[in-house]
Amino acid sequence: MTRMRGNAIVGQAGGPTAVINESLVGVIEESFRHDHIDRLYGARHGLTGVVSEDFIDLKRQPKELLDTVARTPSAALGTSRDKLTPEFREKVLEVFQRHNIRYFFYVGGNDSAATVQAIHQAARDAGYELKAIHIPKTIDNDLLGNDHCPGFGSAARFVAMAFIGDNLDNRALPGIKINVLMGRDAGFLTAASVLARRREDDGPHLIYVPERVFDLDRFAADVIGVTKRFGRAVIAISEGIRDPYGKHWTTRIAQNLEQDSFGHVQLSGSGALADFLAGFIRSNLPGGPWRIRADTFGYLQRCYPESISETDAREARLVGQMAVIYSIQDFTAGSVALERLPGVTYASGVELIPLDVVAPPTPPFTRSLPDKFVNEAGNNITDAYLPYAGPLIGPLPPLGWFEQITSAPVEDSASIATGPGFS
Amino acid sequence: MTRMRGNAIVGQAGGPTAVINESLVGVIEESFRHDHIDRLYGARHGLTGVVSEDFIDLKRQPKELLDTVARTPSAALGTSRDKLTPEFREKVLEVFQRHNIRYFFYVGGNDSAATVQAIHQAARDAGYELKAIHIPKTIDNDLLGNDHCPGFGSAARFVAMAFIGDNLDNRALPGIKINVLMGRDAGFLTAASVLARRREDDGPHLIYVPERVFDLDRFAADVIGVTKRFGRAVIAISEGIRDPYGKHWTTRIAQNLEQDSFGHVQLSGSGALADFLAGFIRSNLPGGPWRIRADTFGYLQRCYPESISETDAREARLVGQMAVIYSIQDFTAGSVALERLPGVTYASGVELIPLDVVAPPTPPFTRSLPDKFVNEAGNNITDAYLPYAGPLIGPLPPLGWFEQITSAPVEDSASIATGPGFS
Repeated sequence: MTRMRGNAIVGQAGGPTAVINESLVGVIEESFRHDHIDRLYGARHGLTGVVSEDFIDLKRQPKELLDTVARTPSAALGTSRDKLTPEFREKVLEVFQRHNIRYFFYVGGNDSAATVQAIHQAARDAGYELKAIHIPKTIDNDLLGNDHCPGFGSAARFVAMAFIGDNLDNRALPGIKINVLMGRDAGFLTAASVLARRREDDGPHLIYVPERVFDLDRFAADVIGVTKRFGRAVIAISEGIRDPYGKHWTTRIAQNLEQDSFGHVQLSGSGALADFLAGFIRSNLPGGPWRIRADTFGYLQRCYPESISETDAREARLVGQMAVIYSIQDFTAGSVALERLPGVTYASGVELIPLDVVAPPTPPFTRSLPDKFVNEAGNNITDAYLPYAGPLIGPLPPLGWFEQITSAPVEDSASIATGPGFS
Repeated sequence: MTRMRGNAIVGQAGGPTAVINESLVGVIEESFRHDHIDRLYGARHGLTGVVSEDFIDLKRQPKELLDTVARTPSAALGTSRDKLTPEFREKVLEVFQRHNIRYFFYVGGNDSAATVQAIHQAARDAGYELKAIHIPKTIDNDLLGNDHCPGFGSAARFVAMAFIGDNLDNRALPGIKINVLMGRDAGFLTAASVLARRREDDGPHLIYVPERVFDLDRFAADVIGVTKRFGRAVIAISEGIRDPYGKHWTTRIAQNLEQDSFGHVQLSGSGALADFLAGFIRSNLPGGPWRIRADTFGYLQRCYPESISETDAREARLVGQMAVIYSIQDFTAGSVALERLPGVTYASGVELIPLDVVAPPTPPFTRSLPDKFVNEAGNNITDAYLPYAGPLIGPLPPLGWFEQITSAPVEDSASIATGPGFS
C-alpha cells in the first residue's frame, strides 16, 4: 500500500495517566510535518466521540496551548471504556468513510489495541484503505511486547515518593502501616515501592504482588517477623492480590462491587481491602497495642501533576510522534512499542509490532512481573528490579538522617544516601 | 532574668510534617551562633527520649548533613505522643537539672505547647532557671495565635495537586469521586482542595468541613444537584465531619477504633468513612448506574517529599531560628507564632506569644476555619480563602485543555489558565 492522502483521527481510551497528553501532542505536532494528513480530528471520549462525530480540529490548536496540554495530566480529549460490539464497529467505519479518515491513532492499553485491530479488520473486510496504529499507555506497565509502558514511570515515581514520605513518617512515629496500591494482575507499580528504600531497615519491609498467592496466615507471620526485627512495619500490597484459589481478595471483601464494560471487577476506589487487612493484623499481632494504619493510594497514583517522570514524559511524546511516522511507511496496522537498548546507561527505542502481540487472541493477555523481580518467599521485591525501574522514574531526592535514630544508645555519626533512581 | 550560659535540648512531637526538620535545623544552626548554648541535645522521640536520656549531640553534626536533613520530610529526631503526667514531668526536670539544660525547644502542636508550659511551670516551682520555647507545627493549621502553621503549606500543596489530577481524571472518565482528607476539627486542609479549581465546572464541586454539620440527606441532595449540572462530581470531605449531634461520623462508622494517649478517637488510617459515603450515594443517586469511587488521602498528605512549599519550608526554618534568638531575650517561656504582614504581596513575620494563647486552659483549644471561608450552604469554600492559602502553597502548574471538552457541539477555541497560587 502506498502513501495515501486523507484525514486522520486520534483518540484516548481507558484510565488516564499523567503523560497520556504527551502522546496526543506527539501525534498532533508530528502530523503538522506530513502533508499526507489533511485534517487531524480529535475524538472526544474515545470511540463514543467517533460514532457521535464529536470532534476537535487538532490542526487548528495554537502551539502554546499544545505545549501546555502536553504537560497537563489526564486525557485532554476525554477517554472511555467502550466495549466494541460489531454494530459499534460498523458505525465507526461509517464515520471514517464519511470523513475520509484514512489514519486512525488510538492511545490506550491492551483493550484499546484489540479495538484498533478489530476496526482495522473491519476496514479491510470492507475494502476501505485505513492505517490503524495503537499507541501504548498504562500505569500497570503490563502491555505485552513492551519493555515498559508510557504512564508507568510517572505513577511509579509517585509511589516511590509516597513511600519515602510514609517510611520516614512511620520511622518517626512507629507502628504497622499497610498501603494498598493499584495493579489488577501485574505487580509492577506495587513493586515500585521498593525504590523508596535507602537504609537496610527502611520500608517497605514487605511487598505483595498479584503474581504470588496471598495467604492470610502467611501474611500475619511475615508482619510478626518484621515487627520483631524493626519494631515497626511498612507494607505494600497490590489491590490485585488473590487467594490460593485464584480469587481476588477484594471480591471476597469489598461491598457494592462494580464491573466495568469489559467485565473486570472494580478493585480501585475503595479502602475495603486495606481496612480488612489492618483489622486482621490488629486481631492477630501479639504484644500490642500496636499503632496500625491502612491507606489506599487509589487514583492519586494516576494523574498527580508534580511527580511526572521526565523520562516517561519524553517517551510518551515519542510514541505519539512515531505513530505518525510509521503511518507513512508500508504498514497498515501495528502498535508502537518501547524497547530498552543494550548498554550500561539507560536508553530506549521504539518499534512497530503486530497488534496481536499486544492484544493476543488467547491468554496471557497482559505481561506479569518477571520471576527474577520477586523474592523466593513471595513477600518482597529483589534488587534486580532497581536497574529496571530506577531509570524510568528519574532521580529521587537525597535524604539525611542522624544514624540509629530509633535505637537506644547515643550515636551521632552521620549519613546521606540517595535512591536507586538518583543521578 | 539575664542571659544564662548552659545546655539546650530540642525535641519534636506529634504527627510529622514535610518541613518539621527545617525547624529543627533552624534551632541547630542558630545555636551555633550563640555562645550561651554550650551543648545542644536532640531528644529522640520527644519526652520519651528526654527521660531515657536518649540524646544526640546536635552541635557535632556536619553542615552538609544538616542541609540534607532540613529538606528531608518527617521528624529526624523521631516524635511521640507522650501524655505528660506529674511523675513524667518530674522525671523530665530531673534530667534537665542533671545535664544543666537551661533551654528547652519543643516543636509540635497545641498539645506540645501545653507540655512546654507544664514543664516551664514545674521548673519555676522548683526554682530552676529554664527557658522553655514552643515551636509551632501542624498540617491542620489550627494553632491559636497564628495566622498559619508550619507544615500546613506543604500538606495543602499536596492536596491542591492531588485535586488538580483527580479533577482532570474525573473529567476524562466522568463519575462521582469522593475524597476524604485529614482534619479532626479544622477544615483548613480540606479547604485547600479549592485551590485546584481553574474552570467554573472544575472539581471539587462540593467541600465539607468539620466546622459545619454534615447531614446525609443534605449531602445526597447536593450530589444530585451537581451531577445534574455537570454530569459528574468531585467531592472533598474532611475526616472530622460531625452529625447534627456533634458526633464524628467516623466514630459511628469505623471499625476497630483506636484512641491515642490524649483520648482523641483515631480518624485517619482507614477508608471506612469514604466507603460508607460512596455506598450511601450509590444507593441514593437516581439515574445510574453511576461510576462511583472513593479515596482517602490518609498519611500521604503529611510527608510527601516532592510537593514541599518553598514558603512553608522557609517559614519552618525561621520559627526554629527565632526560638533560639528569643531564648536570649528577657522571656522565660513562649511560643513562636507566624503572623501575616499587611500589604498587597504576601509577607510573614514572627512574634513570641504566651504559651496559654496557643494552649489555653479552656475551650476552644484550636482555631477553626473562619466563617468567611465557608459558603452559606455549608457545602463549599468561598473565594476569600484563595488569597489566604494561595501564597502558602506556592505556584501551581499551568494547565491546558481544549474548550468544552465534555460537551457535544464541536468547539475548538483554546485556553490556558493558572491557579490562584500561580505567580
